[in-house]
Amino acid sequence: MVLKMNKEEVIAIIGGTGDQGFGLALRWAKAGKHIIIGSRRKEKAEAAVARIKSILGEEVKVEGYENSEAASKADIVVLTVPFFGMINIIKSIRESLKKGCIFIDVTVPLASNIGGKPTRTLGVWQGSAAELARELLPKNVKVAAAFKEVSAEALQDLNSEVDSDTIICSDDEEAKKTVFNLVKLIPGMKAIDGGKLENSRIVEQLTALLIGINIRYKSHRAGIRITKIKKE
Amino acid sequence: MVLKMNKEEVIAIIGGTGDQGFGLALRWAKAGKHIIIGSRRKEKAEAAVARIKSILGEEVKVEGYENSEAASKADIVVLTVPFFGMINIIKSIRESLKKGCIFIDVTVPLASNIGGKPTRTLGVWQGSAAELARELLPKNVKVAAAFKEVSAEALQDLNSEVDSDTIICSDDEEAKKTVFNLVKLIPGMKAIDGGKLENSRIVEQLTALLIGINIRYKSHRAGIRITKIKKE
Amino acid sequence: MVLKMNKEEVIAIIGGTGDQGFGLALRWAKAGKHIIIGSRRKEKAEAAVARIKSILGEEVKVEGYENSEAASKADIVVLTVPFFGMINIIKSIRESLKKGCIFIDVTVPLASNIGGKPTRTLGVWQGSAAELARELLPKNVKVAAAFKEVSAEALQDLNSEVDSDTIICSDDEEAKKTVFNLVKLIPGMKAIDGGKLENSRIVEQLTALLIGINIRYKSHRAGIRITKIKKE
Amino acid sequence: MVLKMNKEEVIAIIGGTGDQGFGLALRWAKAGKHIIIGSRRKEKAEAAVARIKSILGEEVKVEGYENSEAASKADIVVLTVPFFGMINIIKSIRESLKKGCIFIDVTVPLASNIGGKPTRTLGVWQGSAAELARELLPKNVKVAAAFKEVSAEALQDLNSEVDSDTIICSDDEEAKKTVFNLVKLIPGMKAIDGGKLENSRIVEQLTALLIGINIRYKSHRAGIRITKIKKE
Repeated sequence: MVLKMNKEEVIAIIGGTGDQGFGLALRWAKAGKHIIIGSRRKEKAEAAVARIKSILGEEVKVEGYENSEAASKADIVVLTVPFFGMINIIKSIRESLKKGCIFIDVTVPLASNIGGKPTRTLGVWQGSAAELARELLPKNVKVAAAFKEVSAEALQDLNSEVDSDTIICSDDEEAKKTVFNLVKLIPGMKAIDGGKLENSRIVEQLTALLIGINIRYKSHRAGIRITKIKKE
Repeated sequence: MVLKMNKEEVIAIIGGTGDQGFGLALRWAKAGKHIIIGSRRKEKAEAAVARIKSILGEEVKVEGYENSEAASKADIVVLTVPFFGMINIIKSIRESLKKGCIFIDVTVPLASNIGGKPTRTLGVWQGSAAELARELLPKNVKVAAAFKEVSAEALQDLNSEVDSDTIICSDDEEAKKTVFNLVKLIPGMKAIDGGKLENSRIVEQLTALLIGINIRYKSHRAGIRITKIKKE
Repeated sequence: MVLKMNKEEVIAIIGGTGDQGFGLALRWAKAGKHIIIGSRRKEKAEAAVARIKSILGEEVKVEGYENSEAASKADIVVLTVPFFGMINIIKSIRESLKKGCIFIDVTVPLASNIGGKPTRTLGVWQGSAAELARELLPKNVKVAAAFKEVSAEALQDLNSEVDSDTIICSDDEEAKKTVFNLVKLIPGMKAIDGGKLENSRIVEQLTALLIGINIRYKSHRAGIRITKIKKE
Repeated sequence: MVLKMNKEEVIAIIGGTGDQGFGLALRWAKAGKHIIIGSRRKEKAEAAVARIKSILGEEVKVEGYENSEAASKADIVVLTVPFFGMINIIKSIRESLKKGCIFIDVTVPLASNIGGKPTRTLGVWQGSAAELARELLPKNVKVAAAFKEVSAEALQDLNSEVDSDTIICSDDEEAKKTVFNLVKLIPGMKAIDGGKLENSRIVEQLTALLIGINIRYKSHRAGIRITKIKKE
């Protein structure tokens, strides 16, 4: 199956004022995509938009809205919020989502969400944050998990390539393909087919491991590469 | 701390007739280490020794013994057995271990141990197979987890480098250093400091993920590299 | 909904030669049900049948078959096998099951299945042994979890009442009702609606806790009662 | 071992303004114990004290303090706070604890802490909330888990007995004995020896199961009784 990327498609980044979401917004805005930053308060979203424009120039297509309005306008919705807030945020936007939209979950159940160490995780009843999202979202929404193990600092540094693969997990081939295409827009990144959405439970753990590696190696950009396979 | 590797130190590989153990034995025997293959039956161990000598030549220092005898002779004990048998095997060898020896756990709690998919894992009460080993072993034994995410096929193919990092988890600095030194003996491998032994629970998951990647990408050698850190 | 129990319905107990299965077979045979004992080898099943007849008399309707044949003849299939074998046994019988039959899972993922303590459990990728069974079985089979926390010794002692509730978990109302009716046939037992099948993951833990209580209190019959609710 | 309860010993209930803590405070104050209610703000603690005195009379020994001050004055510290706040609260009081004090953890990692269902749980890296507390507390503090599966409504209704057992888990015999004695002060409750602290991970699950049973059976007081053992 070959799915082409519609240049006009709109990407909403819910939690786009945080580090991970902001980094993805920057990268995709730079690549010419139409981006909407979502935040709980519209003003915060607009401040992030202003920051992006100050970096990339006024001509980029980036707008800021409150989360549910942002979600309502998008073909692709990317969730980059802290795990402890994800259920309430999903509940607040799920009625607004376009039918058949692609939903990319980037949340990670780090133990730091309850005051613990970011090198440890919380166990999620549904198996993973991504499967939790799947349970809460309408059936017609197509869910993928991605970008969870990618360094926010590396994403935000436009002067260097993101030297990292990202493992895509989804039960929906269209969603998976869409994420593969989004990955291609980010220099230095490669997408890896991580199989079913349930495998996101492993990828989410990996984030905690990389945070520990960052601490021990005094880096902020540790990433992973999968070796000995032919990547797309 | 700099710990030098005693050339005379003996490495016992419990379960050394299986793919992972055999691959490690081959690599370290080739590098000149003194290796003991352990198996439930001495004859099986001796057959593996014969195979190694047919590949590397008669001059390598490799012997075969029943598991507990193998364990009793070693400074470094490497456990490469299926998860479902690991508790009984540890119980059968733990009285024989030298005081203060290094114990490297390589087992992975794949769901295939109970007839399930190798791309999924079993949850371990102690957190990980490595922590389970820690609980069962005498306090004076120094435990590390390593080599769990390394392809057995890549290890066994002496004609090519193992293009993979391995993440070392341990609460004991001497054990960690010993494993770092063992990794250096295998061309193409790099050791990553994975922090405490508890982090092995994440690395063990990674093995299941790589097995799925191997299946989807028609490889048998998928590995991982950690990027953007300065490795030793 | 009131579902009457067809007196002619046939109950196959897969693993009916083990303690838990044998106890259930005894109780239901005594109550006049038509029971089939399933085992890997027909002779073992027939030996169990002979034991039941020696206890209850020749007139009880109890037969013995190899597991898949036993499964093929039953309206209600009860799985009482050790956890480590459950996947292979389900795979060996699932093609033989009657369409629309009721499947009652009684397995518990105790850590003793891999040589560990029976007071601890293994984590199951699907959440619980019952959810694992659900995944493997045809969609038309109706799955419930029950009897996991009930003492095998108490079941087998026909001279005393089973002083214990059992918590029934299922996503299917008919399956749940069927189990409620089966519970009523056992003097001293009450059925508790445990809600969805996913809740079996909690009930399975409870078995390990009760085993520990049995050990500490020198009992073999510890059970639970739920208080302060109106039971059926 | 027989440990007598010193009548003058002081019990601090951290989070004593919540339902579970308030219920325990009421029961023990009624039994003549010296109780300190701890809360983030002293005024809230004092309001709870006023409520207790309005119910039990002015003569009961109940005081209100900010959490860390409350903790500093107590021989027995009972933690009854929501799981999401427990790490920060433990960190805020652990320096203030008396050496050798008994610490009773009553927290439960319900999924409702992150906006999910109270009939589900979060997985805790350390195994359970109680083991998490153990990790954070000084070694000289003696930790037990208890009262997690006991209905807050039943505790608060002084006109009726609490028809429920509570399962006590601890690695410390003195802590266990202390809790056994505290349980005897509450009419209708019995203490069950739940073994090691690690078993609290099962008891914590049980709370979620009982919440579901309460919902299905339209109760607020479902509890458990362990049958067929000789209780103290």
